[in-house]
Amino acid sequence: MATLMDDEVFMAFTTYATIVTLKMMLMAPLTSYYRLTRGAFSNQEDVARKSAEEKKKLLRTHPDVERVRRCHQNDLENVIPFLVVGLLYALTGPELSAALLHFRLFACSRTFHTIAYVGALPQPSRGLSWLLGMLATFSMAYRVLGTALTL
Amino acid sequence: MATLMDDEVFMAFTTYATIVTLKMMLMAPLTSYYRLTRGAFSNQEDVARKSAEEKKKLLRTHPDVERVRRCHQNDLENVIPFLVVGLLYALTGPELSAALLHFRLFACSRTFHTIAYVGALPQPSRGLSWLLGMLATFSMAYRVLGTALTL
Amino acid sequence: MATLMDDEVFMAFTTYATIVTLKMMLMAPLTSYYRLTRGAFSNQEDVARKSAEEKKKLLRTHPDVERVRRCHQNDLENVIPFLVVGLLYALTGPELSAALLHFRLFACSRTFHTIAYVGALPQPSRGLSWLLGMLATFSMAYRVLGTALTL
Repeated sequence: MATLMDDEVFMAFTTYATIVTLKMMLMAPLTSYYRLTRGAFSNQEDVARKSAEEKKKLLRTHPDVERVRRCHQNDLENVIPFLVVGLLYALTGPELSAALLHFRLFACSRTFHTIAYVGALPQPSRGLSWLLGMLATFSMAYRVLGTALTL
Repeated sequence: MATLMDDEVFMAFTTYATIVTLKMMLMAPLTSYYRLTRGAFSNQEDVARKSAEEKKKLLRTHPDVERVRRCHQNDLENVIPFLVVGLLYALTGPELSAALLHFRLFACSRTFHTIAYVGALPQPSRGLSWLLGMLATFSMAYRVLGTALTL
Repeated sequence: MATLMDDEVFMAFTTYATIVTLKMMLMAPLTSYYRLTRGAFSNQEDVARKSAEEKKKLLRTHPDVERVRRCHQNDLENVIPFLVVGLLYALTGPELSAALLHFRLFACSRTFHTIAYVGALPQPSRGLSWLLGMLATFSMAYRVLGTALTL
């Protein structure tokens, strides 16, 4: 049991997996923040105390809220594959330096992706950071399939 | 191999992880149920047998369907981080009682969250149950990073 | 550490988990392809070089893009439970033949689901392939709970 946590590569995966998961989770409070400051809600019960007229105004979508939600969705679509492939990759026993390179590259590219998305930085900043994260995951998947292929 | 499943904490994680995953999967049939009873579809081929006039009416969004879909999306955003962080947490060798407390708290808070969301219960019932689930995951992430930090 | 990768069932899980994850990740480039060919974007910065008039036209939703996005979302909702339940299932030490049956069934049904969804094949092709994937996951969850139930 404790053997997994004695492995340096697995500990590195644990660290970076937790960090990118926490980063992804922080998109939820960020969405709430934009919902409150922009006044854009999607549930009747969230604006229950307001007058009927105010309710109508508040139950709407707002570009800033939709932007954060798209960023959150993009995290789900990219971080989860990294977590799964990264876990399997860590179990194939790669070099610690190679593993750290993959994990750091992914964590940095996704952090920059969030900044580029929420801050609406000019393209191709968002596109490139997204691509870098994809490539890190593909590279790990390549090693996993090379090591463990059993169809 | 079998050593993981001999570990009590890992067995507890396995149980609760499967339960919350099944709960999350059940949102899909629930969405289908609301789509059928409310008559709100999003794909042409789902209403292929209807007349042209009926098709127009059925290809629409309905507040009840959108509510269940938001609830499902919220599950994806919260249950998946729990599954990842919980797995790593179980591998750090915590006390069984502490682990069970985290897992039970999360499973209960998410079950109540679904009831509060789909049933449109007055706030802050949904908000609090969401917060409780987040805190359980954060608490596990705190221990994981404290045990395995390798940057 | 290496013991997990010596296990035939775990290697089979590793292979199929990576394959379905890669399939899910490929929905993102497919979405980009439809966005570019259909001319339907959701971010201001993605159409920054166009004239003001063109921008208005390009910042819209298109049925084909929305279809691929729904397919991607359906993958997230179904592939992720498979990955989690499948990992735990592989650790319960099932027969290799039974495990391969589950993994192959799931991988085939999800591949066909994507073809049926993106190609808008007549129902119930999409519905049945979705159901088959669900049943494979449920069957594995049944064994996991039967082996490891610790409430």
